[in-house]
Amino acid sequence: MLFEETVETRGHLLDSGVLARVLDDVLEYGGDYRVDRLDLGREHEDESYARLTLGAPDEELLQRLLMRVQAHGVNQVDPGMAMTRPAPRDGVFPEDFYSTTNLATYVRFNGGWLSVTHPEMDCGLRVLDGTVDTIPVSDVREGEQIVCGASGIKVSLPAPVDDPDGGFGFMSSAVSSEKPQALLVRQIAQQMRDVRAAGLKVLWVGGPAVVHTGAAPAMVALVEAGFVDVLFAGNALATHDIESALFGTSLGVDLKKGSGVPHGHEHHIRAINTIRRCGSIADAVKQGVLTGGVMHAMVQAGNPFVLVGSVRDDGPLPDVYTDVVEGQRAMRAQLPDVGFAIMVATMLHSIATGNILPASAPLVCVDINPATVTKLADRGSAQAVGIVTDIGLFLEQLARELVPDFAGSGN
Amino acid sequence: MLFEETVETRGHLLDSGVLARVLDDVLEYGGDYRVDRLDLGREHEDESYARLTLGAPDEELLQRLLMRVQAHGVNQVDPGMAMTRPAPRDGVFPEDFYSTTNLATYVRFNGGWLSVTHPEMDCGLRVLDGTVDTIPVSDVREGEQIVCGASGIKVSLPAPVDDPDGGFGFMSSAVSSEKPQALLVRQIAQQMRDVRAAGLKVLWVGGPAVVHTGAAPAMVALVEAGFVDVLFAGNALATHDIESALFGTSLGVDLKKGSGVPHGHEHHIRAINTIRRCGSIADAVKQGVLTGGVMHAMVQAGNPFVLVGSVRDDGPLPDVYTDVVEGQRAMRAQLPDVGFAIMVATMLHSIATGNILPASAPLVCVDINPATVTKLADRGSAQAVGIVTDIGLFLEQLARELVPDFAGSGN
Amino acid sequence: MLFEETVETRGHLLDSGVLARVLDDVLEYGGDYRVDRLDLGREHEDESYARLTLGAPDEELLQRLLMRVQAHGVNQVDPGMAMTRPAPRDGVFPEDFYSTTNLATYVRFNGGWLSVTHPEMDCGLRVLDGTVDTIPVSDVREGEQIVCGASGIKVSLPAPVDDPDGGFGFMSSAVSSEKPQALLVRQIAQQMRDVRAAGLKVLWVGGPAVVHTGAAPAMVALVEAGFVDVLFAGNALATHDIESALFGTSLGVDLKKGSGVPHGHEHHIRAINTIRRCGSIADAVKQGVLTGGVMHAMVQAGNPFVLVGSVRDDGPLPDVYTDVVEGQRAMRAQLPDVGFAIMVATMLHSIATGNILPASAPLVCVDINPATVTKLADRGSAQAVGIVTDIGLFLEQLARELVPDFAGSGN
Amino acid sequence: MLFEETVETRGHLLDSGVLARVLDDVLEYGGDYRVDRLDLGREHEDESYARLTLGAPDEELLQRLLMRVQAHGVNQVDPGMAMTRPAPRDGVFPEDFYSTTNLATYVRFNGGWLSVTHPEMDCGLRVLDGTVDTIPVSDVREGEQIVCGASGIKVSLPAPVDDPDGGFGFMSSAVSSEKPQALLVRQIAQQMRDVRAAGLKVLWVGGPAVVHTGAAPAMVALVEAGFVDVLFAGNALATHDIESALFGTSLGVDLKKGSGVPHGHEHHIRAINTIRRCGSIADAVKQGVLTGGVMHAMVQAGNPFVLVGSVRDDGPLPDVYTDVVEGQRAMRAQLPDVGFAIMVATMLHSIATGNILPASAPLVCVDINPATVTKLADRGSAQAVGIVTDIGLFLEQLARELVPDFAGSGN
Repeated sequence: MLFEETVETRGHLLDSGVLARVLDDVLEYGGDYRVDRLDLGREHEDESYARLTLGAPDEELLQRLLMRVQAHGVNQVDPGMAMTRPAPRDGVFPEDFYSTTNLATYVRFNGGWLSVTHPEMDCGLRVLDGTVDTIPVSDVREGEQIVCGASGIKVSLPAPVDDPDGGFGFMSSAVSSEKPQALLVRQIAQQMRDVRAAGLKVLWVGGPAVVHTGAAPAMVALVEAGFVDVLFAGNALATHDIESALFGTSLGVDLKKGSGVPHGHEHHIRAINTIRRCGSIADAVKQGVLTGGVMHAMVQAGNPFVLVGSVRDDGPLPDVYTDVVEGQRAMRAQLPDVGFAIMVATMLHSIATGNILPASAPLVCVDINPATVTKLADRGSAQAVGIVTDIGLFLEQLARELVPDFAGSGN
Repeated sequence: MLFEETVETRGHLLDSGVLARVLDDVLEYGGDYRVDRLDLGREHEDESYARLTLGAPDEELLQRLLMRVQAHGVNQVDPGMAMTRPAPRDGVFPEDFYSTTNLATYVRFNGGWLSVTHPEMDCGLRVLDGTVDTIPVSDVREGEQIVCGASGIKVSLPAPVDDPDGGFGFMSSAVSSEKPQALLVRQIAQQMRDVRAAGLKVLWVGGPAVVHTGAAPAMVALVEAGFVDVLFAGNALATHDIESALFGTSLGVDLKKGSGVPHGHEHHIRAINTIRRCGSIADAVKQGVLTGGVMHAMVQAGNPFVLVGSVRDDGPLPDVYTDVVEGQRAMRAQLPDVGFAIMVATMLHSIATGNILPASAPLVCVDINPATVTKLADRGSAQAVGIVTDIGLFLEQLARELVPDFAGSGN
Repeated sequence: MLFEETVETRGHLLDSGVLARVLDDVLEYGGDYRVDRLDLGREHEDESYARLTLGAPDEELLQRLLMRVQAHGVNQVDPGMAMTRPAPRDGVFPEDFYSTTNLATYVRFNGGWLSVTHPEMDCGLRVLDGTVDTIPVSDVREGEQIVCGASGIKVSLPAPVDDPDGGFGFMSSAVSSEKPQALLVRQIAQQMRDVRAAGLKVLWVGGPAVVHTGAAPAMVALVEAGFVDVLFAGNALATHDIESALFGTSLGVDLKKGSGVPHGHEHHIRAINTIRRCGSIADAVKQGVLTGGVMHAMVQAGNPFVLVGSVRDDGPLPDVYTDVVEGQRAMRAQLPDVGFAIMVATMLHSIATGNILPASAPLVCVDINPATVTKLADRGSAQAVGIVTDIGLFLEQLARELVPDFAGSGN
Repeated sequence: MLFEETVETRGHLLDSGVLARVLDDVLEYGGDYRVDRLDLGREHEDESYARLTLGAPDEELLQRLLMRVQAHGVNQVDPGMAMTRPAPRDGVFPEDFYSTTNLATYVRFNGGWLSVTHPEMDCGLRVLDGTVDTIPVSDVREGEQIVCGASGIKVSLPAPVDDPDGGFGFMSSAVSSEKPQALLVRQIAQQMRDVRAAGLKVLWVGGPAVVHTGAAPAMVALVEAGFVDVLFAGNALATHDIESALFGTSLGVDLKKGSGVPHGHEHHIRAINTIRRCGSIADAVKQGVLTGGVMHAMVQAGNPFVLVGSVRDDGPLPDVYTDVVEGQRAMRAQLPDVGFAIMVATMLHSIATGNILPASAPLVCVDINPATVTKLADRGSAQAVGIVTDIGLFLEQLARELVPDFAGSGN
């Protein structure tokens, strides 16, 4: 192990298990470590401090190791100065670019430490006019200065949620369907009220099961009561919501009567055609064609939504971004001031949103399928809290908590 | 196909798909068929009538074919007379015994048609003192007269639920998590009220997730309001419920505070030991040791419960039948007058109950795991309706529907 | 029911259950039916014939009913003449456009019956220069003539697989994980040999689990042996395959050593950057940068692949269609001469492909998650056969069947 | 925190995460801790040593805390002497009995430390004639001396698997379906060869999917080659295996032809009746009635099997223990000399076996359902390794690895 670097970290290292994960990663990467110092908080409230020397057989691996452990909030003791190289071509980073985490990040140049504007995972760091921001590889332009190597970079972990009553903290434990669900709903409702009181936005990411489970009325009530500031979704949620508003069906379920209309697929393509004729969802509302449902409520409330297409889409609706990279840009543009994100019944859009959210924004992922929730957490969205439950009943109860006069779907 | 027999059936043969399933079965068994007559109801409200000739290469297969199609309500045109043989030994049927369905069944002897007392699947038909009842193979005694072959036997399908408003009929469609869940809860609540009004019993079959999901208070409210006449469960539900009442935990979840107590396994074995010391659950209630929870509520209400053990049990509680065959007998003894069965979050006990319920009792199976629900339906419990949802929120909402002053769990 | 139309159908109506499904659909749509004639094949090999009169309360619903039942191969007895209207704008169909199935379809004009060029679901029928083809709503141009209403249209079901030995027919039964898996693999291998012998193409649709489960060597062997004529996938499969080839890892699993590299996320973004620098995957092969893996094998074999992006993509690779509608067009362009489609471990791309495949192409969907398989079948891809199994072992065994000198992955 | 006790532990505390889990548990129980000393191994190969003072508000909780942390191998620095009390009644422990882990355990009396004979979870420690063994609560007799409180008890963790090549160690990472499956099969095969070479026994625990997936021939080959020393199962595996041998079907699948025999339920009850008539499975083999399948192979090989009943059983077979507590005793009697346990496709029997296995026996749990695997690990069977894969293909490949002349199922 010829190449070495000393790193340090501070925080609740033991009871959070973060130190164990750091050491795991070092070994998995083929590196090695030595614990130089460990000051353990004597009482469990105290912070600990650890200093480690990491070693690697070559410089390139050492640099990657240093980047890797930064994902856990571990920084170099002597970070040195950041170094940049120009992007060799449009859409291409220099080979040894620093690959970002979504933690608060600082970069040191001669003039001192600069804070990175919008932390996002798996991007590069672009230095432009004395500021540093994250830039996805698809958006980098030839010649832009990109930070390379791990020198001169520090990250800091988000402060742990300080919760004397144990309130929301509960949900930071593992994904499980065996939890007191009624309590979870109440905790999320409170979180939303707090975020709104703080003047921040609540971001929703939703899949079509919101409509299929009959929860659209609950969702509409939440929109009207001001708890859905932004909505990210795909063509499916909007289409089934609109199909349901226009024809009273959603992919084969007559939601009012409760009797099935299996295979009623062609309704959704007619719904899409109708909106395309109107020009857009907002136009359809304006023309009096679309008079109900979630999308109608968003338009009436004047709240933004971003619909991004996928390869399985029919149509799609005219509001859908068919170019996924442009769709990602539109989503990023809505992130400032988001104080809480809730993801409901969609794997694709939940992961997409988790990829671009900074670690500082708490997020909750709700799905009946444990795999979706687990997958989101595994992607490195450490702030993700997973709830395995039924979407229909979950939204129904959330609306009852937050909207005093909500009488229940189907009434 | 040298061996033939003519069969007939009447009902909604086409739109229920039953005729297709009969013909499938015949071919799958290696038999063959000829449609002799098919009188189709012209309008969809009308019943149809079909007469088929079934053929098989040997008499034994023909007899098994005839038994098989009876599971769909298809009877021989000329059923002949039933034939019996004595059971060769305790616990053993004659080789060619008639294997029962759970449909209403009639057996013809010289004296005419006798109705089978308690239809149950996979049993034999025992003729005793001029009556016919079903008898499991484990309970047959040497020399008892057992019906053999398919001659002289008729079955009749339960009348389809006649529901002008489409009410409960909705749920007869396929298992799905994409249904208006709030509506389903309301339909089940109504079903329970109707059953109670008719003087019949509501049977619950439950797994430990009732407690883990924090739904015990909702369940207690339902017991106290008279909607849980009988409870079938295993050692786990009762143990976790009692552990929760004694220690405030249930296998690692502090249900009141909402913070986890992972691995708190030893609590449950202490809870079991405490009840064993008292003598029984009812004794623990009487002695003032057990003062809350679902089992306490059942004891207070004077309602029966049957706990049957399994190989994975710790303890078990003194009330648990450790012999599974005796446990099945205890369950059977509770079935008369059951008008509705609801199975919540348990595969093992749901299947066990499905095995012994007559086809005439409607049953609903609720689980977050689609596989459990599907498995129950696949076992031939044709009257099973499956709901894939979250147990905690489901019971919470059901209690809100049925118990006016239920304020919600965790309040 | 003032509006009526007489329809007819022919085939194995009873044992396939198709007649029951037709009648179900009619009732679910709020229509009604009368069975005018039913000639049942006496023996089970014989075809049956049914003539029904369908009724609806208004003309629009009747037209939609007629379109609906065509999905089951039911046509009007007196189809009349087809009627067209011009598309009112680019990307918009006339209101009452005929929404297509993926069955072989014929349209009648004065000159007689025209065959529709490429049947695809949820499209319109465009009449151009005396021919009729399917056109997605996104591609229609203002003024193009689009068939409206259900008049003058016939469809025909694909011939059932005629399989005297019961071979592939087995798999037409329901989705299940409880099947003799070794037998299924052998049947699929034979199907692929047959398709190749017939000069047709085998289409693969794959997800990243192909790489994660360590099955890339098996897949490479299949490519090299000529059993992968076309590959549809997303950014993820190609990225993880290339990451694995460049760094020996795939999203955190060191595949050779078998020890985990958890969270090694930044490797994949470096792999993407490397290919972007090269220009394309083929360029990376040409430049000697990419020397192994599935994508390398496809390039070496000169076989086409279509990678379509999604909103969750990092990068993406330069070969990825970021516009999903363009991606769908590129997929459609590869469909002619596809004789067999196999979908492995991807819900998104499997559904996308199922949407555009004609009903005549047999397809097999393989996934460890039953929900994926079920969802594909539910979308109306009636020819879909589902296999719930482990991707890694499945591809390993398939390669052993088809490639005599395949020694097994990891050797 | 008036009540305190000092504890210590030694081992790979950080990289295994065990220290974090200990501290978590202390806080979750409502206790507190102070780190008195932490000697960290400087290099990652070195062991660490930690000494902590645990505090609790009352003595009872302190004792429970001390028992709790022993599950992680944490012992009192000054353990004192063990104390016993007599069991107050048959089947009842003293109130403050020591609840066991499945780790190697030592108890100190005046005469020094005694080793506990067979460590098993959730039992009591019985002192009898100068030895200490574990005793389930159901088996304790009035007046037997049972260890109470946590004093005088030490446990020791099993040595970590020392594997320089990373071989089996790989599988100690998290449950996942995204692993190189072919490699896993090879590692398990090697483990079995090693265990056999060491003169120890391979224990199998199996569910009926072994038969349904068509893997019975592979399983038979493994039995004949000597890799199945003991088999634990329920009535279902044996019944379906025997049904398949007698009738060629297994709950509705004709395994040879590959075509389905749906609903062929009555076959299994006939199979059971046939074996009941013979007297036992071994008698049926002796009488030439049962001539194939897994159970036949076990009888021929002279290897023991333990079948334990459940409440859902039909019949059951005469060999089945209908009393589950007696069944557990019969299972325990087979555990000595078990060097490796493999659990295939059964949640119920896997958990039952995990409950009674000592921590020193490595075990692998194979299931297509991730929940089964996760549930086993969650129960505290720390030595459990989970593999999410297809049972049919897994057993097929395992047989190919271990049995040179195995030609494959279905040939």
